[in-house]
Amino acid sequence: MNSNSFGDKWTFTSFGESHGRAIGGVLDGVKAGLRIDFDLIRQELSRRSGKDIIGASARAKSEADEVEWLSGVLDGVTLGTPIAFIIRNTNARPEDYEFLKHNYRVGHADRVYEQKYGIRDWRGGGRASARETAARVVAGTLAKQELAAKGVCINAHLIQVGTETNPDKFAETIASCQKDGDSIGGIIECRINGLPVGTGEPIFDKLQAHLAYAVMSINACKGFEYGTGFAGVTQPGSAINHISGGISGGISDGSEIVFRCVFKPTPSTPKAGVKGRHDACVATRAVPVVEAMTALALINLI
Amino acid sequence: MNSNSFGDKWTFTSFGESHGRAIGGVLDGVKAGLRIDFDLIRQELSRRSGKDIIGASARAKSEADEVEWLSGVLDGVTLGTPIAFIIRNTNARPEDYEFLKHNYRVGHADRVYEQKYGIRDWRGGGRASARETAARVVAGTLAKQELAAKGVCINAHLIQVGTETNPDKFAETIASCQKDGDSIGGIIECRINGLPVGTGEPIFDKLQAHLAYAVMSINACKGFEYGTGFAGVTQPGSAINHISGGISGGISDGSEIVFRCVFKPTPSTPKAGVKGRHDACVATRAVPVVEAMTALALINLI
Amino acid sequence: MNSNSFGDKWTFTSFGESHGRAIGGVLDGVKAGLRIDFDLIRQELSRRSGKDIIGASARAKSEADEVEWLSGVLDGVTLGTPIAFIIRNTNARPEDYEFLKHNYRVGHADRVYEQKYGIRDWRGGGRASARETAARVVAGTLAKQELAAKGVCINAHLIQVGTETNPDKFAETIASCQKDGDSIGGIIECRINGLPVGTGEPIFDKLQAHLAYAVMSINACKGFEYGTGFAGVTQPGSAINHISGGISGGISDGSEIVFRCVFKPTPSTPKAGVKGRHDACVATRAVPVVEAMTALALINLI
Amino acid sequence: MNSNSFGDKWTFTSFGESHGRAIGGVLDGVKAGLRIDFDLIRQELSRRSGKDIIGASARAKSEADEVEWLSGVLDGVTLGTPIAFIIRNTNARPEDYEFLKHNYRVGHADRVYEQKYGIRDWRGGGRASARETAARVVAGTLAKQELAAKGVCINAHLIQVGTETNPDKFAETIASCQKDGDSIGGIIECRINGLPVGTGEPIFDKLQAHLAYAVMSINACKGFEYGTGFAGVTQPGSAINHISGGISGGISDGSEIVFRCVFKPTPSTPKAGVKGRHDACVATRAVPVVEAMTALALINLI
Repeated sequence: MNSNSFGDKWTFTSFGESHGRAIGGVLDGVKAGLRIDFDLIRQELSRRSGKDIIGASARAKSEADEVEWLSGVLDGVTLGTPIAFIIRNTNARPEDYEFLKHNYRVGHADRVYEQKYGIRDWRGGGRASARETAARVVAGTLAKQELAAKGVCINAHLIQVGTETNPDKFAETIASCQKDGDSIGGIIECRINGLPVGTGEPIFDKLQAHLAYAVMSINACKGFEYGTGFAGVTQPGSAINHISGGISGGISDGSEIVFRCVFKPTPSTPKAGVKGRHDACVATRAVPVVEAMTALALINLI
Repeated sequence: MNSNSFGDKWTFTSFGESHGRAIGGVLDGVKAGLRIDFDLIRQELSRRSGKDIIGASARAKSEADEVEWLSGVLDGVTLGTPIAFIIRNTNARPEDYEFLKHNYRVGHADRVYEQKYGIRDWRGGGRASARETAARVVAGTLAKQELAAKGVCINAHLIQVGTETNPDKFAETIASCQKDGDSIGGIIECRINGLPVGTGEPIFDKLQAHLAYAVMSINACKGFEYGTGFAGVTQPGSAINHISGGISGGISDGSEIVFRCVFKPTPSTPKAGVKGRHDACVATRAVPVVEAMTALALINLI
Repeated sequence: MNSNSFGDKWTFTSFGESHGRAIGGVLDGVKAGLRIDFDLIRQELSRRSGKDIIGASARAKSEADEVEWLSGVLDGVTLGTPIAFIIRNTNARPEDYEFLKHNYRVGHADRVYEQKYGIRDWRGGGRASARETAARVVAGTLAKQELAAKGVCINAHLIQVGTETNPDKFAETIASCQKDGDSIGGIIECRINGLPVGTGEPIFDKLQAHLAYAVMSINACKGFEYGTGFAGVTQPGSAINHISGGISGGISDGSEIVFRCVFKPTPSTPKAGVKGRHDACVATRAVPVVEAMTALALINLI
Repeated sequence: MNSNSFGDKWTFTSFGESHGRAIGGVLDGVKAGLRIDFDLIRQELSRRSGKDIIGASARAKSEADEVEWLSGVLDGVTLGTPIAFIIRNTNARPEDYEFLKHNYRVGHADRVYEQKYGIRDWRGGGRASARETAARVVAGTLAKQELAAKGVCINAHLIQVGTETNPDKFAETIASCQKDGDSIGGIIECRINGLPVGTGEPIFDKLQAHLAYAVMSINACKGFEYGTGFAGVTQPGSAINHISGGISGGISDGSEIVFRCVFKPTPSTPKAGVKGRHDACVATRAVPVVEAMTALALINLI
């Protein structure tokens, strides 16, 4: 399997540059007969685009993420054949990024990309752009639908923004940071309920290893932990060994699975010399992406 | 690729129950002409078996990990064919575990295994046993040799045991815990130097995603972070965005890579009702396993 | 890897129903900097569509195979990112196939599809349609370009049509069959020159096994042989063992590789009750598809 | 998946040089609870070793193929963990092959191996030796057992030896060839009954493509055909299109599957200058290997 694909039961292949003609994906392995919930997909794309989030950027708002379904679906129902879809980059104005043709952005992957490939799509990040995650959200929402039909629910939410852990104050913290022209990180917690006992394999394909792989593949994610996590190190075994975090020996044990992941602040800020509006806290937009990748990981292990 | 294999360039397949005839592995993809450093392998197995560690159990000490090479090697040099090796379980006394035939151990995977497979090798953990990691260490040491020849060095070490962060006091902390019949967790830090720019892929095959997958597949590991990690959440972007942790956009950027992982305390303790000597801090024995899995992850991405 | 993908170095994923919105593909793993020869692709699609072949059907002629490139290409040069392309089904008129909604065609896969999936895209064959091979030709032509740059040439041609082995008389044989409302099979021979010694692996990944897999995955192909093939059975070893067919022990030996494959007659004929014009000899259109699949197989082994 | 492994549901990894310490394999993915039929395995190994075949060589007879089970089996029943087994090379006398250290055998892969790997295990063929197929037979017999439990039967037999198609005269033909110090090829026909409708996938993972891949990976196999095969080319569609060979559109259709494959004569003959007794017709020994590879292909598709 090549590096733009994920999973071997539901194989999701992602394609598209952020300022090319379109981004999109192919989802192979979905069985025939799944009725696609198009409203849910629109809603998840809206969560990802940050339209409802205080401090979401103008750039985010202008992304009208209309999905065009090219194959695999007839009258809203899957055919069992590969599902190809695209989201046109209606707002693709490479000239806005002309200045990047001969410049690297600090904290971005521009330089390593050019070193690795010898060529670089300077048009606004190319594949490195977080825009690619829109395709993951489309595929992940289908996976969430299929999982929900099996009684499996995935819910992620922000539990910390900067030093703030009170959700009521997240908006305020982000607005303040936005005003300073700076950015701030966040921690997302994800809970999985209803997963049957026995998901995951004992050696390399441990459930936690697959969840970590899926989540760490999201831009800006710097860490993953489950159950007692890093904080557990300060407690003796006698105090915490009854806490499994929902996974024993790499396999789901029937109890709720809880994991957390941390997202760094975006480097593209006025303070760092990048003009225009910016996302002060990209972690807010990562929430549906974490759910999507979790769903894709689970659907491939069940 | 099935669930007891790791990697598609150097494919390592692990086999063997902890109290069956042997554990072992097959390593496919190693090119011809690598002279195996048998002394280094013995040394790494010794680190893993905990022989040199204060508080290492009698069980650990009795594991005489002699590797028998079945194929792929002629006169100490690899042939380019699959390398199969075994470590006999000389100390396999299933009768010691007879009592487990009808009992599940708390904090162990015994119960989920039986639910998943319908059958369970009750002989001391079977595949769930940490003994399986000895095979990983053999394979990983070959990978470390190959990486070293390319100038890549991997060094892991304990940086925290319980609440203690002063290495000079780790032995004392563990001994005290051992005496209490309890157990304690630890944090391991791993540093990778000399990795060329360009290792890792931008979307799903991000370097950090593969490192997380490799390390989270080790028994008792509860979390992985790199660069600024979880602690970075409290800092604004302007303060930390120059810290890459050695990886930009999923790809190595030529600077030192630093990651950390946390290991929980073993649940098999006198305090939890498990008789006999015990490992008060399994994190100590995990250090060479973290290096081995890191090496296997890197060798498959370079 | 899922069942609509081929190869793990250049991974080609095919999608699209014959009478849906579009067919297409994603080609992942192509390195940056390959200048695409769009003329060659048009020419290969034209060979596949049978425009130049006596007896090619009206259906074939109406297929205006215009490729739209969605990603992975900038100014005609590959970016190293996944190359997604589509061919719109401009002529998709599902109403022409309305009668198939409640009928199975003899010699076609209609019935097994419905049994397998429980649902069936009755619109003219869906995925089973040979139209899917147009996407293979696009991907395969890129592979042929890359191989040609390495000095590897692939040339396939018809060597037998029905009982006729004189190429000068193929057109006549097909025309006569066409007039009878019947169909006829053909044998294609493919020669590979310039392949470096050492392509292929000794055990399961033998070069001949991969060529057979690639070619047998083409609709209507009923057999594959190389070197002395089936006819060699009548000769003693002393007479033929100097003939390698270009492969020894599963590995290319530097001499010309020669293989043959046989295509059955189409079951969709007036004689079988299917109205309209028909392809009397689909083997003619399979020639560029055999080259394309050969190229995709080789590019994944080199 | 690396090149010494086959299949992704039941992943079989083969290892071992013909004159090293042992050959063997690991079979991963077999579910718990299969009672292994050790007698059947011995019987299949005996068929492969040619003990019962007129003209089988002294070399064949001396192979005492005793299987040692290292893991995955407890009290004769599979545990759901990887099954590792070895067959010791009791008769490994590298000194018999000393003369090969500086010589290549005609019609063998000796030369390409050395060119590919830069190093060569000159001890009697190394991995290229047909001895490796003994491990395939062990794994394939487990697959046959599992398939038989699902009602799927696989039966292969010789249908042609040289020009002879009367089975009663095969022994005579081979004996005569043996006496001449020459060798002769053969055609094996394999019939699969009881395979449920729906096995195989429509595009690349066509059932016939996987069967071809599996069978063409056997040493000395030069061709594969199913249903009407190569001979069908002489018949018009109207005469043969009711013959599916058991597969429609890449998917089993519930009728008997019939395929044929051809094996070339061995190049190691007295006539070619190779001393000692020889196998005049290796096709005879290939019969159980064809069944084994067919079983492994099917078990991975069902």
